[in-house]
Formats: sequence, C-alpha cells, structure tokens
Amino acid sequence: MAVYTDVTDEALAGFLGDYEIGEMVAFRGIAEGVENSNFSLRTTQGDFILTLYEKRVDPAELPWFLGLMEHLAARGIVCPLPVRGRDGVALRHLAGRHAAITTFLPGVWPRRVRAEHCAPLGAALAALHRAGADYPPTRVNALGPAGWSPLLLGCLERAGDLPEGLAHELETALAGILADWPEGLPVGHIHADLFPDNVFFLDRRLSGLIDFYFAATDILAYDIAICLNAWCFEADMSFNVTKARALLRAYAAERPLSAAERAALPVLCRGAAIRFALTRLYDWVNTPPGALVTRKDPMEYVRRLRFHCSARDEHAYGL
Amino acid sequence: MAVYTDVTDEALAGFLGDYEIGEMVAFRGIAEGVENSNFSLRTTQGDFILTLYEKRVDPAELPWFLGLMEHLAARGIVCPLPVRGRDGVALRHLAGRHAAITTFLPGVWPRRVRAEHCAPLGAALAALHRAGADYPPTRVNALGPAGWSPLLLGCLERAGDLPEGLAHELETALAGILADWPEGLPVGHIHADLFPDNVFFLDRRLSGLIDFYFAATDILAYDIAICLNAWCFEADMSFNVTKARALLRAYAAERPLSAAERAALPVLCRGAAIRFALTRLYDWVNTPPGALVTRKDPMEYVRRLRFHCSARDEHAYGL
Repeated sequence: MAVYTDVTDEALAGFLGDYEIGEMVAFRGIAEGVENSNFSLRTTQGDFILTLYEKRVDPAELPWFLGLMEHLAARGIVCPLPVRGRDGVALRHLAGRHAAITTFLPGVWPRRVRAEHCAPLGAALAALHRAGADYPPTRVNALGPAGWSPLLLGCLERAGDLPEGLAHELETALAGILADWPEGLPVGHIHADLFPDNVFFLDRRLSGLIDFYFAATDILAYDIAICLNAWCFEADMSFNVTKARALLRAYAAERPLSAAERAALPVLCRGAAIRFALTRLYDWVNTPPGALVTRKDPMEYVRRLRFHCSARDEHAYGL
Repeated sequence: MAVYTDVTDEALAGFLGDYEIGEMVAFRGIAEGVENSNFSLRTTQGDFILTLYEKRVDPAELPWFLGLMEHLAARGIVCPLPVRGRDGVALRHLAGRHAAITTFLPGVWPRRVRAEHCAPLGAALAALHRAGADYPPTRVNALGPAGWSPLLLGCLERAGDLPEGLAHELETALAGILADWPEGLPVGHIHADLFPDNVFFLDRRLSGLIDFYFAATDILAYDIAICLNAWCFEADMSFNVTKARALLRAYAAERPLSAAERAALPVLCRGAAIRFALTRLYDWVNTPPGALVTRKDPMEYVRRLRFHCSARDEHAYGL
C-alpha cells in the first residue's frame, strides 16, 4: 500500500516544469509496491510513474539503480526507463524526497501463477542477466548471505514472540546454508526480487519487469532460486515441478547453466527461502501494531525452506 | 489505501469479456478511497475505473448510486459514468463482490486547498443539486441527524478511551444541534462527502466529481455545510472566510439560497462537523490496532464544531 508521502498539486506542477513531458492530465496514488511511494501520472504526452524514494532506499545507491534500468532498457529489456529532466538529470527532489519519473509499462501482473507464465519468466530473467553483463558499476547485495546472520540475530532478540522451535530451526538451517554456499559461480547483476507482482503480462506474453530497487551484483543462479521460490509453490506450499522445469529450461535456453550452477540449486534455493523468511520475520517482530504496512507471513518461506532442505539434488527442481 | 480484494487475471479477463470495451492493457490498484477496492483499468479503448464494493456498502443501494451517476452524467455533471455490459447491466459480480466499471476522469485532487478552488467547487455543488432534482428515487441519509445519536452512543460505550470532557461536549453539542435542526428547507440529492479528494481539477478548472457512495436525499444546504467544513479550514483549524465566501457566492449564483437556508448555515455546519467527528471517533475506537486502514483524527472535526458553535449567524461564513 504504497503512498507514504503525498505531493501537493503546486509542488507537482513545479516539478513537472523541469521536464519536457507535457502538461499534467491525471495523478493517482498506486496501491502497489511496499518500499516507495508510487503514483500513476498522465500528461498530454503519455503515461508515467512517479516514484518518491522512502527511507529504506539509500539515496547514494539511487544512481546505480536508475543507471541499471537505463542500461537494461537500452539493451531491449522492457523495464521502466528513467525520464530525464530538461537539464539531463533523472534523479530529482520532490516533497522532501528523492524522486524520479519513469516510463509506464502496460500489462498486468499475474495474481495466480500458471505454468504458462514460468517459461517467459525464465527467458526474461536470463535476458536480464545477459543484458546486465556490460553494466560496469556493482552493488553489494546487502540482503545476500553476509546479511543473513545479523538479520537472524535481529529477529532472535525478540525471540519470545517466535513460534516454539523456530529460532533453533532457522539457526541450524542458516549454518548449513552458509557452510554449503557455493563459490566461483557466475556473478552479475540480479533483480533479486522478481516476484509475480514485479512481472507484467499482456496477451499471455511477458510485457515488462519492474521494481529494480533490490537489484545487486551477486550469483546469477541465486536470482533463479529466488524465482523458483516465488513462482513455483502452490498456496498449500507444495512445489510445482512443472512450473520449475518450464522456468529452468527457458532460462537455460537463453543462458546455459553450468553443471556447478545446476548442482548448487538446492543450496541457492535454501538461501533464497531463508532470505525472505528472515526479512519477513524481521518486519513481523519489528512492525508496530497499527503501522500502515502489510506484514507478510514469514512462515510461508520457512515452509519453502523445509522443502529445499529435503531436496537431494537439482533433480528435485525438474532438471 | 483501497485494495481490500484482489482480482485474479483470469477472473478479470472473464469479467471484461462481458463488456464491449476492448482488450485489457493495464490494471493497477489505486491507493485512494477508503470504502471500496478501486483499480485503474486500461483497455485498447481507453481508461476506466473498476470498483469492487466492500462490506460497508449495502448491495441493495448500489443501483440507486449507479442510477444517480448516470442521471447526473446525462445532465452534464462530470462524474464517473457506469459502463454497461453487453447485456445492458452495469452492476455485476467479480471476485465475490459486487462490481462496476465506470469511466475514468482526468484531473488531480487538490492536496492543498486554495481560495481559487472554492468558487468552482460551489458552482459544481449547485449544478449537482440542480441536475439531481429530477432523479425520482430517494435514499435516506443513514448518516443524517437521525443517525448521530446512535453513533455517539456507540462511541461512548468505549468512553474510557476518550479525552477528558469530550463525551460531555459531544452530548451537549448534539442535543443543541438536534433541537435547532431546521425543517422545511429545500431537499434533494446531496453528495454528502465532497471532500477535496473527491474533486478533480485540471488547468485550474474543476474537471470532475467522484465517489458518490455516501450520496443521499437530504437538505441541500447541508451539503454546502459539509463543504464549508471540508474546504474552508486551515491546518491550524482557523476558518478561512475568503474561501467560504467564494464557495457560497458561486453556489448561490447557480442556485440562489433562501433566507431560511442562509440563516440555517450555522446549525447545518455544526451538524456536518459532528457527523464527521462521530464517524471518525467511531472508527477510532473500533479499529483494531494493526488494521490496514488510516484512522483519521476525530479531533479535527471537534475543533471545527467548536468554531461553528461560536458562530452567531450566517455572517460568520462571509455572507
């Protein structure tokens, strides 16, 4: 539910005066995204998204994100393209926040994932990884393996609130994941949050990828593991291997997976599951009652983690 | 923050198949409105709003609201026009809710009210009242004077949570309002919730009115009193008589106010202030912590009420 900061019409009119994108026609808050304030903006020249960056995003990193989107868009990835002002600058200020306007992408994100979504997703993820290969600057993944122990510690400080046995389960699983974490796998820029609500489809075709504000430089196959977690479990937490196989085959057709990458899938999936379990758990124990954010259930990812812990090898994922 | 119910893409595609409005291009939740779930819907034929009616709206009353909007739109009021399906029916079902598609209105609601907004507002309100005059069906205003005592009682049942003296102040004020409530004033269909976020402007002109789901049949000048409360107080709760005068003069130019209506303004304003103070207070004391709704501060309307209680006569409003 993402309008944390509102914008006066005068401030908005002044802000738009710094762009050459026509006159304002409509302006509505968007009830999607959880980190920033997003508005749908229509001008006489078309449709745009206005984003106000809220406190979770480090302003120093915004040029990296916007630069990545420009880079990817220039290489044919359909993603929001930052719009530059008259002075050539895309990252600006509005209502006391860093702000940027990006292009509007048509499409609808799949509320219910079907197998037919997963092959286009896999292909788009591989294309994203290939297109990012020649974007030189890097960004450390703050939510990568090195961040998980501090995150778990932050949760356990309130362990009184956790279900019986969960703390021990997470500690044991995390120790195993960190011990098994692969080295030497291909690294590049990953989306790191490619959940269904960040992928648009139109007429059964993938029409765009959005929300690059968790993107970072990390193991490419870890991005696949995030998608396997986000797209291939059913509501009852059963794993849909048909979806996984479609995703992996379409990915590999665009960017072949090495034997080492394939073999690492189970631990990468365990890592991806614990990463989302931990951030959700952290938000859960640290969100004051009455705060205007949706707390997502961490147990959904604990249950995914259990599945991955039971996977003997990559064949569990349909390979 | 208004997406209480989400819609799967398959369900939406099936739903749109019942209309002749083209193919889906984009679909986003809108972070505005507090009673229903609203989505911005773009098709190959244009832009629309999809509304899912949530529990606060009585389904039996939906045809009255949709009929009023059709009636007003046909008489030149710029308001959302319900779009009928192929079978001629506008009120349909989607995702377990009553649902309707209406036209999209351009414009931006004023985040900060300026005096120049108030004359167009007054003129539009009068035009709305005139256009509604020949819409025969009526709707009792459940949030009119007869509803205020039960509402206050519902709040006082939790009086332990109220600031010192507030219960007594509200009881005394309400008794006075009900004793002084005018009879015989012109009655018609009122919007009853014409706050700034329900009024769009474009290029300094009023471009549309939205959200008719509190509309009812009641004293027309009471609708003016609601607007005086919603548009003419500054953030420090001082009353801006310049805004009030602009609103009232522009209204009267479209629909002259009788001496009785003018004389009744203070009590109508007291009534409008206590109505919003009471519903906000009721929500405040009855909203569980952690619920995903914005609780609005009832004291903002208690302070308005105090101003109106101090008004000697209609001259306090710039008449």
